[in-house]
Amino acid sequence: MMQEPARLRMGMVGGGRGAFIGAVHRTAARLEGGIDLVAGALSSDATRARDSGRDLGLDDDRNHADWRAMLEDERGRPDGERIDLVVVVTPNDTHGPIATAFAEAGMHVVVDKPMTRTVEEAEALVDAVERRGLVGCVTYNYSGFPMVRQARSIVASGELGTIRKVLVEYHQGWLTEAIEAQGQKQAAWRTDPHRSGAGAVGDIGTHAEHLATFVTGLEPEMLSATLTTFVPGRRVDDDAVVQLRYAGGAKGVLLASQVCPGQNNDLRLRAWGSRGGLSWQQEEPETLVVRSATGAERRHRRGDPNLATAERWSRLPAGHGEGFLEAFTNIYAAAARAMRGEPVTVGEDYPGVRDGLRGVRFMHACLESNRKEGTWIPLSS
Amino acid sequence: MMQEPARLRMGMVGGGRGAFIGAVHRTAARLEGGIDLVAGALSSDATRARDSGRDLGLDDDRNHADWRAMLEDERGRPDGERIDLVVVVTPNDTHGPIATAFAEAGMHVVVDKPMTRTVEEAEALVDAVERRGLVGCVTYNYSGFPMVRQARSIVASGELGTIRKVLVEYHQGWLTEAIEAQGQKQAAWRTDPHRSGAGAVGDIGTHAEHLATFVTGLEPEMLSATLTTFVPGRRVDDDAVVQLRYAGGAKGVLLASQVCPGQNNDLRLRAWGSRGGLSWQQEEPETLVVRSATGAERRHRRGDPNLATAERWSRLPAGHGEGFLEAFTNIYAAAARAMRGEPVTVGEDYPGVRDGLRGVRFMHACLESNRKEGTWIPLSS
Amino acid sequence: MMQEPARLRMGMVGGGRGAFIGAVHRTAARLEGGIDLVAGALSSDATRARDSGRDLGLDDDRNHADWRAMLEDERGRPDGERIDLVVVVTPNDTHGPIATAFAEAGMHVVVDKPMTRTVEEAEALVDAVERRGLVGCVTYNYSGFPMVRQARSIVASGELGTIRKVLVEYHQGWLTEAIEAQGQKQAAWRTDPHRSGAGAVGDIGTHAEHLATFVTGLEPEMLSATLTTFVPGRRVDDDAVVQLRYAGGAKGVLLASQVCPGQNNDLRLRAWGSRGGLSWQQEEPETLVVRSATGAERRHRRGDPNLATAERWSRLPAGHGEGFLEAFTNIYAAAARAMRGEPVTVGEDYPGVRDGLRGVRFMHACLESNRKEGTWIPLSS
Amino acid sequence: MMQEPARLRMGMVGGGRGAFIGAVHRTAARLEGGIDLVAGALSSDATRARDSGRDLGLDDDRNHADWRAMLEDERGRPDGERIDLVVVVTPNDTHGPIATAFAEAGMHVVVDKPMTRTVEEAEALVDAVERRGLVGCVTYNYSGFPMVRQARSIVASGELGTIRKVLVEYHQGWLTEAIEAQGQKQAAWRTDPHRSGAGAVGDIGTHAEHLATFVTGLEPEMLSATLTTFVPGRRVDDDAVVQLRYAGGAKGVLLASQVCPGQNNDLRLRAWGSRGGLSWQQEEPETLVVRSATGAERRHRRGDPNLATAERWSRLPAGHGEGFLEAFTNIYAAAARAMRGEPVTVGEDYPGVRDGLRGVRFMHACLESNRKEGTWIPLSS
Repeated sequence: MMQEPARLRMGMVGGGRGAFIGAVHRTAARLEGGIDLVAGALSSDATRARDSGRDLGLDDDRNHADWRAMLEDERGRPDGERIDLVVVVTPNDTHGPIATAFAEAGMHVVVDKPMTRTVEEAEALVDAVERRGLVGCVTYNYSGFPMVRQARSIVASGELGTIRKVLVEYHQGWLTEAIEAQGQKQAAWRTDPHRSGAGAVGDIGTHAEHLATFVTGLEPEMLSATLTTFVPGRRVDDDAVVQLRYAGGAKGVLLASQVCPGQNNDLRLRAWGSRGGLSWQQEEPETLVVRSATGAERRHRRGDPNLATAERWSRLPAGHGEGFLEAFTNIYAAAARAMRGEPVTVGEDYPGVRDGLRGVRFMHACLESNRKEGTWIPLSS
Repeated sequence: MMQEPARLRMGMVGGGRGAFIGAVHRTAARLEGGIDLVAGALSSDATRARDSGRDLGLDDDRNHADWRAMLEDERGRPDGERIDLVVVVTPNDTHGPIATAFAEAGMHVVVDKPMTRTVEEAEALVDAVERRGLVGCVTYNYSGFPMVRQARSIVASGELGTIRKVLVEYHQGWLTEAIEAQGQKQAAWRTDPHRSGAGAVGDIGTHAEHLATFVTGLEPEMLSATLTTFVPGRRVDDDAVVQLRYAGGAKGVLLASQVCPGQNNDLRLRAWGSRGGLSWQQEEPETLVVRSATGAERRHRRGDPNLATAERWSRLPAGHGEGFLEAFTNIYAAAARAMRGEPVTVGEDYPGVRDGLRGVRFMHACLESNRKEGTWIPLSS
Repeated sequence: MMQEPARLRMGMVGGGRGAFIGAVHRTAARLEGGIDLVAGALSSDATRARDSGRDLGLDDDRNHADWRAMLEDERGRPDGERIDLVVVVTPNDTHGPIATAFAEAGMHVVVDKPMTRTVEEAEALVDAVERRGLVGCVTYNYSGFPMVRQARSIVASGELGTIRKVLVEYHQGWLTEAIEAQGQKQAAWRTDPHRSGAGAVGDIGTHAEHLATFVTGLEPEMLSATLTTFVPGRRVDDDAVVQLRYAGGAKGVLLASQVCPGQNNDLRLRAWGSRGGLSWQQEEPETLVVRSATGAERRHRRGDPNLATAERWSRLPAGHGEGFLEAFTNIYAAAARAMRGEPVTVGEDYPGVRDGLRGVRFMHACLESNRKEGTWIPLSS
Repeated sequence: MMQEPARLRMGMVGGGRGAFIGAVHRTAARLEGGIDLVAGALSSDATRARDSGRDLGLDDDRNHADWRAMLEDERGRPDGERIDLVVVVTPNDTHGPIATAFAEAGMHVVVDKPMTRTVEEAEALVDAVERRGLVGCVTYNYSGFPMVRQARSIVASGELGTIRKVLVEYHQGWLTEAIEAQGQKQAAWRTDPHRSGAGAVGDIGTHAEHLATFVTGLEPEMLSATLTTFVPGRRVDDDAVVQLRYAGGAKGVLLASQVCPGQNNDLRLRAWGSRGGLSWQQEEPETLVVRSATGAERRHRRGDPNLATAERWSRLPAGHGEGFLEAFTNIYAAAARAMRGEPVTVGEDYPGVRDGLRGVRFMHACLESNRKEGTWIPLSS
């Protein structure tokens, strides 16, 4: 545990005072243990940017009010001083331009989901990353849970037979009221279609899509979506029902909603094959339930030495609970290993830009299907 | 508890040796305490019918091999001897003809779900029952659970606000393999479209539809269905995904599948309104979970004296678990009270033929929508 | 399911209007299907006795105000009319005299727990039953749950290794307040030491002792008890902590309390051996959890066809929940089979008078140990 | 979240390569964010000490093979360079001497539990810390969980009435076999009475004692203990049953065992008062269950904005699970605040040396009571 690796220099765009996910990224980097935050453009508000950077101990000359200034500055710095990676945790509409610009300058990128607002931006980012052989990581963090990775192994082992049905749901309640009209900043940009691209289907539906694909290994070929705006005055969907068709005849249902009062972050996955099924819930992440046609339900707990995959991604022994931050850190740890040139598998060890592109396509296909009253839309890959 | 009521004479069609649901109906009648089985045509096989009737202590002259003979015989018996009610637990395609014939002869009817195979048969049965002022009960037994009735009360109280989303799912695994091809009798008629009318959507989808409607008080106006046959060679659907639209803008998702290995009888309901949500699971029937936007999740247990509705339908104190049979008996108890002329509310205290008709319409609308690739189909009421 | 057996005639002493457990016994007899209530002395209050008997349809000449009159009457009746068994559901202090008198007259007995108030009464009842080769059944009903019987099988199979530790707990809250001083009839006699013999340790501690012994096959040899009366003014213990020593070095802890507000009927058993452990809870009776040193926790559900023992004692398939009444009925069913001369094993298929005697000895040893400040007391067998 | 505090310099004794708890302490310090590891004597084996220190980036001149050398070296360093605190994560028998020596030299101490092996050592450490006005922190880490702190608030609010019963249990399975005889290093020193002082009662019983006292505010006055060694050849207890008496008449039961195969780290607390009860489990740390005599069970989840105490000690919003490391970090964070001179309450915000002393007295009183066959032993305070 905690052997010190070669250190990486990290810059961050967005994530200033009051931002939730920026702090999570920084904590994951800190827990990873080999990443130092050295530069930032932490807010589009100059005062907030400066104050936030000072909170975090940034040198004044690397504490910027604008990401373009930061990019310019870093570009001019020598090897051994220039940042190795940039983390982009701004509203969705700026993910693509920022990440692509840094990638074009040769820096690795870590981008929050959805990777970009448009498919074109996503394709541009994939191109920029791949042409330069960079690491492009999209923080689909739920795939970092050890028991999610174990679930993927179990499916891959064939123990459940051929997967037939996938049921993934993500229920939250925080947008039950029109809090975007009451000055809640997080809600404001997430419900502004020009900044977010979409509502629930983009914000949490993309997480659900990634989780289902990651565990089952099945990429959807077609989808039919019904998007609903339950809260009067809201400009984006706050509820999504999506049907998925996979190659080989498997089918999926994806439910994402942010108007379910009393639900916090209720992401769940169930999948059934011709011989068995499994179930995992994000709010009880240490347990993976596996069932077969007869016989006892098996509740696997992280830390069981028989679970080789989960073991690889664990820090603590069984019964010593790990949570959200450790899972997030697993994504960072794998991406950092890739940045250090160690052998890791993009898409498996950390979600890459192609996973991000698939998510953006998923989001837009849902919007299109919904506009066409549920028509089935192909998902090119 | 268990005050002895005026006795009712019951006849049964179907439900002979080896049948599951016939025995459940008889046990419910026995637990109710005021119903005596006195006549039967328990099988379409003459030997099995005779042996089954003898097992149950029927007199030979009321132990028939054919329901028409039984009807003829009962019709000729004097008041005070003739059966008060007939229970129809045959395969679906004969529900309508049999129940309607007995109703035409003035006897109350209890019919298993789906009430009939066709909408026309369902309408005929409604007509026969209503014209004569009879009791027509459809055994949507899951609505008999005390905590389901409590859930209905909670929704009706307005505590959850206006219901926006309904999510009902019914997952079983017993048809994961093509057991109908291996001589399993239950599976054989249920997967024969001429006898059952439909597969999962009829067999368990109708239960799910009823449960959701019963608890929320919302009747679907439109639906879009995707039915799938996962098991090669099967002649009916074994999996259904149905979207529902309700008056006033609420929406629902109904999932029913019989190819989920490891699931036994996993019927669950969740519903969310503008102020809170609730959750109930058939395999943990004594608990009802209620959530609000903030504050603790409340887990109500049957037997709590504050739960007036559940209390009315309970036999045992809290912590002394009731199950499937008690819920089934609650349906019988309410229908029996109606037959005795006591004041009960059809649709609330016991499911009536109009609930049965709605279920048959639901089933056929799903079949039609699926044939039309998910087109939205109105559900006339 | 439900094949009709040879009918038995049952008399009942106690259990009139308002009594909880009398009604449970009658329902169990009804569910069993082959037992008819034909005689009773249902209350020591003459009016209540008469009214209660009429509620239940007893003929006036077999509806008595006094159990001695009933005994006299039954004794005089011919074979084929005289009751086969008597059920004794009075307060504890009269169990022994009544049951012994009926047994002396050659009738089978079913007695609620604790079997008697004193050890001498218990020994007399054992003697009366055994000398005449009668069936004497003590309704330790929790041993009737299919998954409890499965647990016993698992221990007996050796899968858990040698049992080392037993932890049984029974927490209720209904005596948190001094309701016996407020006219609650059940509480009044149960907290009157002359009628009950003891408080929590007798009322529910004996259930816990039986459950632990039944599942593990271990009979305690010594015990040390701390009894507490938490509620001011109460005349019996309302809380018990008992340590148990078994032959071979295993040890147990038994906790019983009736002053735990919010607990309904929270009986739980855990046992660990040298290779694994198991856990069962009465409020989730369909599940049995088995654990080994490594590997997944196995949650067995009643109805799984691999669970042969549970299957023998089940009425319904998996996922169709059984509860308290079915477990109670299993005790009746086995005792009735014994009364009909069929081969059953006393102590295993139904709890016998020797189990009852052990319970009374347990209760008195706890009282003695507590008087002697926790001194270890041997439990002769 | 994550504002950078004034930095503290930390030294560590013990916790080299392969040690579990040393790495946990370092991660907690890292997550806290303001503590830097600058010196160590990480192993009593010189090579392992050197290698471990290099792994962690210690300068060679502060990377020692012997804690005395480290103490000598630190003593000689100027203010602003000398360590502020030392963390002692050696086997129990050296906790006291090491921690006391560093405290005598004016450095704050963080000591793993049990605080020392003997009562005398514990008293000496209390004295050394208190005379100098230092921070002495004992890592009873389970008291760092937000919902444990919320539980303490709920008890203190009086909502549950006067606490009557406390039931705390800690079941593990890792010592089911005699792994100390197979070279398992952790097991070896923990089962060596000269190094550990006691077995299960010291290793995990002290955690359980602290948790119960922390939440209920009740300090035990007397105890009676039964310690058992189930595994042949083991030199310390591996199972403890302890009864506790509190001022005012409350009573407790404390169970600690390390021979329960299948249990990982199953620490649970239940407490009941005259009006309600609560329940918490370490393996589901985000939930706190509160019950009252009637009404629904309330399941509080960390992150609910109504839970002010839990909120103070949380990093992430509801539904984003925190675990063992965050709880551990809460202890560090409070102790660090104390070291920085900020106002915190010892015993409440972090466990202090008086809590540690109480634990050592508890352990020795259990040993004494057990030697005297369960005699009640007073716990002086």
